[in-house]
Order: sequence, then structure tokens, then C-alpha cells
Amino acid sequence: DLREQICQLLSPAEGVLQGKHVLITAGPTREAVDPVRYVSNHSSGKMGFALAAVAQQMGAEVTLIAGPCHLPTPPQVKRIDVESAEQMLKAVQDRVTAADFFIACAAVADYRPTAVADSKIKKSASSMTLELVRNPDILATVASSSKPPFTVGFAAETHAVADYAQDKLKRKRLAMIAANDVSDTSIGFNSDENAISLFWLDSQQQLQSKPLDKASKQQIARGILEQAARLHTSNDYSIATD
Amino acid sequence: DLREQICQLLSPAEGVLQGKHVLITAGPTREAVDPVRYVSNHSSGKMGFALAAVAQQMGAEVTLIAGPCHLPTPPQVKRIDVESAEQMLKAVQDRVTAADFFIACAAVADYRPTAVADSKIKKSASSMTLELVRNPDILATVASSSKPPFTVGFAAETHAVADYAQDKLKRKRLAMIAANDVSDTSIGFNSDENAISLFWLDSQQQLQSKPLDKASKQQIARGILEQAARLHTSNDYSIATD
Repeated sequence: DLREQICQLLSPAEGVLQGKHVLITAGPTREAVDPVRYVSNHSSGKMGFALAAVAQQMGAEVTLIAGPCHLPTPPQVKRIDVESAEQMLKAVQDRVTAADFFIACAAVADYRPTAVADSKIKKSASSMTLELVRNPDILATVASSSKPPFTVGFAAETHAVADYAQDKLKRKRLAMIAANDVSDTSIGFNSDENAISLFWLDSQQQLQSKPLDKASKQQIARGILEQAARLHTSNDYSIATD
Repeated sequence: DLREQICQLLSPAEGVLQGKHVLITAGPTREAVDPVRYVSNHSSGKMGFALAAVAQQMGAEVTLIAGPCHLPTPPQVKRIDVESAEQMLKAVQDRVTAADFFIACAAVADYRPTAVADSKIKKSASSMTLELVRNPDILATVASSSKPPFTVGFAAETHAVADYAQDKLKRKRLAMIAANDVSDTSIGFNSDENAISLFWLDSQQQLQSKPLDKASKQQIARGILEQAARLHTSNDYSIATD
């Protein structure tokens, strides 16, 4: 409501994450085909890096696990660079038990080549088949662990965004999900702006949502972190039970 | 010989390419799988950008056709950004008839996904098959045209480098080829240094070679361009006839 909005604007939320450890993944992953070729995606890492910067400003101790990104490390953020999904999972598992919040913002490659060729594959045939195998699901692995942190996922879809996001929230047993429509090229991948919708289940397992209108990725990051901190503190959220 | 080396050091080769148009491709290409995923390779574009900068310093009018690179455009170089191999071929064909030299330094993806999905492919199966089709061969297309410019190719291999380079020189009907061993991670992709061997056929169709020892990519670029200019001016080279 209006009162809440005004109060939010007046309280800049500094210190809201004081004493909390926030673990964030960002950027794409690269999955090697051979020593020179790889499969990847268009994630710039900007949203994840904005989350890291803002979480630090809000008082958190922040660890940022980044796929290949051409972005500077935010001040006082501990950055760990990785390439592949398997490397990212390892880096997350090494640090997640100490985390109060886990925000999986990286665009992890869903599949990787089944076998990485030792030397560069020679081109010869007019066509070629690349066999791919599913990568580990970092988000679901963390969220389904015995004592998970407050886990936030992202859904980047080109259509039916809200439906996919709600399904993913429940299926992966997340505390909250941030959904954005990457088919709108003015926001999302590589853009400096974003517009998303947050979804979560309240303590009665009722779906709740909150839109964060188009704004800078810094402002969106603040909106996500404030909502996560609010739910974590009030405990007014639940994990899907079915 | 020593005399030639000393003369080279004394004459800085400024103006050697005065009045010449040099067309250079650089960087990787990205081949879309769907709106978010792509196949690419580890080329940083540094070697091609160094060639463009040095060719301009040597007096040439330079057009640089670049795949996705995070590099600044060298002074007074005309840069055209492209993503895919097909876009790169189109950009080259639009400009190659005006070129005296064509230097194909880009690491063009050999294959692209057969069909680009309109919307993001949903992950579901534990494995997946990606069907790929050969990309157009930009280098061979230019070199086999009716009146090609002096065409220089690159061979980036992980083993048997010299053999592959000589075969490629003849098979693609190039004027000269620059071979480097990308399995040595201290040079090549993403490194600031490089070490290559140049190969060409003299006017008697005899294979000639010249090593350019490990040095900055700027110095290697100068070595390549000086040798290309020398062969082009003296006409002491030939294209494989078989």
C-alpha cells in the first residue's frame, strides 16, 4: 500500500542484511566442446553483480561465484571465477553451508557436451551431431539439501513467464523466485534495466507476488533483497510440500 | 640473414602499406541455438585487432570485421561488428572487392545449429542432441573468387601444426598462412603474446617458411604484415595449382 511504499522510500534499508552471509551466482557458464569451442549463453552477469553490490551495501558479507563476465568486482565482495556448471556447483557446495541466503542468478547451461574432445575437432563432414547431457541443477541441489539457506531462483523465459516461474518455485522447492521476460530486449540479458515479478508461498502455502517495475538493475536488486530479507525475518513464507 | 634483420630493425616499415586497403576479420563468431544459447569459441580478437592497428600504422586503409569482442577499436580503423559466420561472410563480401589484402584472423565457428529455435528450448530430457551444419568457409570463398586479394589465413591447431597449416595453404588456395599452436596456453587465444610460423609458396611453387618467434601480438602483427607486403610487392609467391 501507499504507506508501505513511502516507508520503504524513507528507510534506505542499510544494515538490513547486517551479519548475514549472502551467496550469489552470476553470469553464464561455458561448457567445453573441445579445447577451443564451447556452448554458452547471452547472460552478461549484470543482474548478479548488482545483487552482490547492493547486498554488500545492505550490510551483508557477500560471496559472488561468477561465470565468464567482463565486469568489475563490486567493493568488498569476495569473487570466485568459474567456467563450467560443474565448477560452479563445486564452488557453491564449498560455501553454501555458511550462507543465510543463496541467490542463484547465474544462467547455468542446462546441458554440456557428453565428452570433451582432447584436441580440436577437425571439420570434415557437412553436418555434425553434438551429444549433450544434462548439467547438475545447482539451484535444486541447494534448495533440496537438508538445511537450505533462504534460496532465491530466477526464471528467464521468452513466453508464459509467470506460469513457468510459479511451477519452478514449487518444483525446485525455492523460498522465492524472480521472473523476467527475456523476449523484451530492452530489459534482461545485457541490458542495464530490468523488470521482474517476485513469487513466493506465504506460511499458508498461498501464492503471493510482487511486481518490481522497470528500473535499473541496482534498484531491482534492492527490491529483491529487501523482499527476501523481509520474508526471512518475518518467517511468513513456506516451501512447497507436494 | 643478419643483414636483413638489421635492415628491418632500422626501417620501421611506416608507409609500406600506403594506399593499400586491408580487410581483416577478428574474434570469434557466435552461432545461435535459441534466443539465449549459442555455440562459440575462446578467440579474444587480440591478434586481429593488433593486425588492424599495425596495418593502419603502416599506412593502410583498414576495415576490421569483428565478432563479439571486448576490445577498443584501433585509431582510424573502420570497424563492423557481426555475430554469426553468415553475417561475417556477408560483411566480407560487401567489402572484399576493394581490398588489396584480406587477412582472415577470425576464429569462425565451423558449424552452426541447423535450425534456430524461436523460443528458449525447455530442458526436460537427461540428454539432448544438437544438430549442426557446416558454416560457409569465408576464407576459401574469398581465396577462390575470380580476382582475390592477397589472402592470408590462420591455422590454430593443438597438434601437427605445420602439417595442417601447409595443407590448408594449398587446399584453400591462400597466398600465405600463419600457423600457431593453441595448445601452448602462454600464447594464442586470450594471451597478449604469440609465436607463429608463416608458410607460402614461392613463384616456383616451392614451400617457404619464416618463423616469428614469441613476441607481443603487435610485433607478430608487424612481422605478418611486412612479409605479406614484401611478397605482394615482389610478386614472389604463387597459389597452389593442384
